[in-house]
Amino acid sequence: MCRTETIGPVSFYALLHRFGSARAALEMVPQLARRGERSKTVTPVTRAEAEAEFAALQRLGAQLVCWGEPAYPSGLMAVDDAPPILTVLGRAELLGSPIVAMVGARNASANGRRFCRDLAAALGRGGIVVASGLARGIDAAAHLGALETGSVAVVAGGVDVVYPEENRGLHEALARQGAVVAELPLGTEPQARHFPRRNRLISGMALGVVVVEAAARSGSLITARFALEQGRDVFAVPGSPLDPRCRGSNDLLRHGAILTEGAEDVLAQLGAQLKHPAPPPPRPALPPPAIMGWPLAGTQAPAADDAALELITERLGPTPVAVDELVRQCHLSAAAVATLLLELELAGRVERHPGNLVSLR
Amino acid sequence: MCRTETIGPVSFYALLHRFGSARAALEMVPQLARRGERSKTVTPVTRAEAEAEFAALQRLGAQLVCWGEPAYPSGLMAVDDAPPILTVLGRAELLGSPIVAMVGARNASANGRRFCRDLAAALGRGGIVVASGLARGIDAAAHLGALETGSVAVVAGGVDVVYPEENRGLHEALARQGAVVAELPLGTEPQARHFPRRNRLISGMALGVVVVEAAARSGSLITARFALEQGRDVFAVPGSPLDPRCRGSNDLLRHGAILTEGAEDVLAQLGAQLKHPAPPPPRPALPPPAIMGWPLAGTQAPAADDAALELITERLGPTPVAVDELVRQCHLSAAAVATLLLELELAGRVERHPGNLVSLR
Repeated sequence: MCRTETIGPVSFYALLHRFGSARAALEMVPQLARRGERSKTVTPVTRAEAEAEFAALQRLGAQLVCWGEPAYPSGLMAVDDAPPILTVLGRAELLGSPIVAMVGARNASANGRRFCRDLAAALGRGGIVVASGLARGIDAAAHLGALETGSVAVVAGGVDVVYPEENRGLHEALARQGAVVAELPLGTEPQARHFPRRNRLISGMALGVVVVEAAARSGSLITARFALEQGRDVFAVPGSPLDPRCRGSNDLLRHGAILTEGAEDVLAQLGAQLKHPAPPPPRPALPPPAIMGWPLAGTQAPAADDAALELITERLGPTPVAVDELVRQCHLSAAAVATLLLELELAGRVERHPGNLVSLR
Repeated sequence: MCRTETIGPVSFYALLHRFGSARAALEMVPQLARRGERSKTVTPVTRAEAEAEFAALQRLGAQLVCWGEPAYPSGLMAVDDAPPILTVLGRAELLGSPIVAMVGARNASANGRRFCRDLAAALGRGGIVVASGLARGIDAAAHLGALETGSVAVVAGGVDVVYPEENRGLHEALARQGAVVAELPLGTEPQARHFPRRNRLISGMALGVVVVEAAARSGSLITARFALEQGRDVFAVPGSPLDPRCRGSNDLLRHGAILTEGAEDVLAQLGAQLKHPAPPPPRPALPPPAIMGWPLAGTQAPAADDAALELITERLGPTPVAVDELVRQCHLSAAAVATLLLELELAGRVERHPGNLVSLR
């Protein structure tokens, strides 16, 4: 179901809640999408296509980890648009350990790379699994430093797609000794629009994010912002004001990030969480429906009429708007708005954004 | 009077309050010191010695600036053990401008020196006079950067004593274009014990202190601590964790110093004070006696008896103790304790410390 076009994580969980099973939900998808007034028909992924993916995963030695399973990162479970399934190549059990993310500049200095590698190794000795994005520079150094103790690469494409090419050896080493994790299916080539969401997964599965050498307005700062939104600790390594690669990380320090000169700074901050980790949350079959503003399974969602559909699309535009705000402005019930948004999303007209925001495509 | 052995700033002001004039106070000093049970007699500086100092100052082109005079730095006036007089070689009027101190490592990196020099020049363009300690490294770079706009060197010895020798050219340039300031008289060779007090003057005359490249446990951190005690802003320049010269400055950032990558960070923080400076305080002839816990002039200080003297010396040791605590423990009046401490200090048995603390020598 989650491989079907236009079914994002929010719709995925909403459909399961609404119809009780993936089979029942998939049968309803074409009809719901038509109600969203889309000329093009949405065709659910077939059983044969799903089985082909399973077979390819087996050939590769990869596996799927589903939301709620013990190997699914517990931090990520608490994120409201967590991927329903992750593809994992390598040691899936690493995802159940305490994870710290390390991110930074692709064009990092020699000193920055060395520092990052040493810090990753020291975090590993402290019992931490290090996650990063398998990019050049800081990412690669972080993976290398923690290769022996536990390193997880979260990639923007499929786990079998090597990117960038120069990290092919590291990709293979991680598949053997660490783990390569992806939200998107095998064979997906990473595209620019995939990276922000990938960054959100990196911060979401981590207790904290360490930023090493990040320039102003760089992707690492986006990851740091996600981390703050998700309630994670943000650590930053100070650097010379003469080095533009440190502009962003120094700016994080100016705004309250934890100054980090070594693993002890990270371990001290996370100390309580590491020694007395929160008891693993009970593993429900689904995220609580409150996250989606979706009516409980079994309750009758009101049928959407054309007038309501028009009311809601009028109020939507390219700028993301809060679903709560839509409910207020349209004078419709939360359940009715949720139904309409689901239909519009399935029809490919609406896009979801973190924080329960939606926009018109 | 302030050139007389054992008369520190606190005793200086206390004696003036007590006896109304320096002449009257000086006549009493030998007798008071004897009451402090010192075998060696304290001999006040003579008129001839004072006139010789004046003559030497005139030959050098230097001048004395007294507490309360317009050229005396207003920030320093608010410090409780401010020097009664400063010797100034060069442009004394610079001391009346808004001052920012810059301090840091003597073995600063080439990048650190360059950054420091540029920052000093930019502060100068922003209307700030830059103060530092005329040491090698960061100090010298700060003076050089602000030489044309206004730079003040506060030295630990006399203003005529060049130290270190390699800064002779800079010393001469500052005497011409900037200012060299000292608490101690002409000809004094700087000694290790003079430096902490000199650092306290640097922070005391400044609105804030910028720390550039300071190692752990370095003198620059002492200056920063003084600045915090004196209610001054502390700025620190971030640096690589791989450089031990940045350990101390990064540690300041960890503890709340203002992250500084350029003059705009300093000017923004000091903005309000620079645009709307506090009106110059009324210039009283003396600091308020409350600072010293000394009875107002005209009130009768109780005569100290041997029993009280013994009581107080018993409770003193090499570790500084608060005068207030002594008053409480000895069940004597504040005025009586102040009298006894004055006598003990004049006798060379008691030493004063910042924060109204005293210890036995």
